[in-house]
Amino acid sequence: MNEAERRDPRVVALGGGHGLYASLSALRRVTAELTAVVTVADDGGSSGRLRRELGVVPPGDLRMALAALCGDDEWGRTWSEVVQHRFRSEGELHGHAVGNLLIVALWEKLGDTVAGLDWLGRLLGAHGRVLPMSSVPLDIAAEVELEGELSTVHGQVACALTPGRVQAISLVPADPPACPEAVQAVADADWVVFGPGSWFTSVLPHLKVPRLAEALHATRARRLVTLNLAPQPGETDDFSPQQHLEVLHRHAPALEIDVVLADTGVVDDPEELEKAAAGLGGRLVLADVAAPDGSPRHDARRLASVLDEIFHAKR
Amino acid sequence: MNEAERRDPRVVALGGGHGLYASLSALRRVTAELTAVVTVADDGGSSGRLRRELGVVPPGDLRMALAALCGDDEWGRTWSEVVQHRFRSEGELHGHAVGNLLIVALWEKLGDTVAGLDWLGRLLGAHGRVLPMSSVPLDIAAEVELEGELSTVHGQVACALTPGRVQAISLVPADPPACPEAVQAVADADWVVFGPGSWFTSVLPHLKVPRLAEALHATRARRLVTLNLAPQPGETDDFSPQQHLEVLHRHAPALEIDVVLADTGVVDDPEELEKAAAGLGGRLVLADVAAPDGSPRHDARRLASVLDEIFHAKR
Repeated sequence: MNEAERRDPRVVALGGGHGLYASLSALRRVTAELTAVVTVADDGGSSGRLRRELGVVPPGDLRMALAALCGDDEWGRTWSEVVQHRFRSEGELHGHAVGNLLIVALWEKLGDTVAGLDWLGRLLGAHGRVLPMSSVPLDIAAEVELEGELSTVHGQVACALTPGRVQAISLVPADPPACPEAVQAVADADWVVFGPGSWFTSVLPHLKVPRLAEALHATRARRLVTLNLAPQPGETDDFSPQQHLEVLHRHAPALEIDVVLADTGVVDDPEELEKAAAGLGGRLVLADVAAPDGSPRHDARRLASVLDEIFHAKR
Repeated sequence: MNEAERRDPRVVALGGGHGLYASLSALRRVTAELTAVVTVADDGGSSGRLRRELGVVPPGDLRMALAALCGDDEWGRTWSEVVQHRFRSEGELHGHAVGNLLIVALWEKLGDTVAGLDWLGRLLGAHGRVLPMSSVPLDIAAEVELEGELSTVHGQVACALTPGRVQAISLVPADPPACPEAVQAVADADWVVFGPGSWFTSVLPHLKVPRLAEALHATRARRLVTLNLAPQPGETDDFSPQQHLEVLHRHAPALEIDVVLADTGVVDDPEELEKAAAGLGGRLVLADVAAPDGSPRHDARRLASVLDEIFHAKR
């Protein structure tokens, strides 16, 4: 056994929202060397209000990622619950997540995006590090096709709500600065994990941040794509698993993928998907990673077990 | 040396706002057995908005007391600064103190006022415990005299802003439940410290919570009053130190005071004040406890040093 096999694999998980939460909930069981690189293009809800009111990076997806990594003890769980807590009222605080407010306060106090997240990570006893993909707030511009007509939709919320089919996304600004620590983490990784999550608004945006995209292409890490269990309404309504890979390929034509992981139950045509994976340079792993109750979410234990086998080349 | 002399004295500090902050900043240097019992009648600013929007006990004075007790290390100081941080914007969060939001979130999540404060205390590494005088939000009703006319003013803000001289205060509701842990702390104390602080709205309210007032009369602890350095505009505009003691006596005629501590510089007539202290059953200690720069605030080191001498009967 060489050194790389003895130590935990260094894993970078890319995404945002509930998809990244699921990915991290599994990965934290597999490695202690975990970094999340999080989309910062949300413009809805508590995050949207905060970026408009205070001009900050939207904190919501960062908060959720940190909560997914919280410590296992009473301390970590309690603070994680407090951080995830939302105020309910008929007044100005309604809907704000406490952790969003805390992250913004840390940013204002420390004047440093990464340091603020590291402090919240220490509070939660987080099993890993959470970084933004960029240190400036971003917007997503989506090219949407409806009845043969193409139009451009601005913002994550509009992108999810506009009828029609998203064809491609770009970022506004188009050339945002990458978070240097995120670029470094990708360069140092053994594995980079894309998805699951909202394909256009959480998974693909990383490939549109130039320096981060460069690092994702240049890294010696192996690249894994975890496919979704269900289409995302308004984004990928009737996309097959293959089409998810095609869209990924269109947004980063030179990106090679080593492993495509899909749940057995959602793949109608394994051969087609295998072919699509091979087209990206990789192989397909089919496994039962969905929740046993049939709901369209990944089961953290099952996903962890399969990822562990893949990382240690047992699958 | 008997056991009581060897161990730190158990001290309960009563008050609210900046006065209690000053008292605690000194007392934390003197004893590790420190409990703050805090007024919860604020209806202004961030606290006022929170009690109106969410129906909670106003958290601001509790937050300040916890910040005064924060740990000495980078951890304690950083979280204390974050907790004291206020949002500045032109939007809905403007003026809210982060710690107020955090306390309310802990209360909503844990469903227990004291447990929520204990959790924030653990986060800050607080040197002591902070308790509310009552677990329900209170309002102050002040009897105000202006040009010979008496009127009643409701609320702490109105009490501070209304012209005229406050004569007496009462609480609404008139018979609020005391916080049981606060009653117990008073019963177990070696010393109970009143003030400094806004006399009518922070120092006297404790004597109007029936079970707490009972405990303050019954305790075997010695009682110390730290007098203010400057009159409180709108409350005690031209009150002499003696008049502060008279007002205290009017609100709790049976309460005996062991020590009255006043700054040398603000006492014009030491003999009169000595007489007033004796009238309450106690003695006067005059000392330099004000900030050396002449500003009307207590110096934590000087106040600590004098309190330490008093507690150990060296003064």
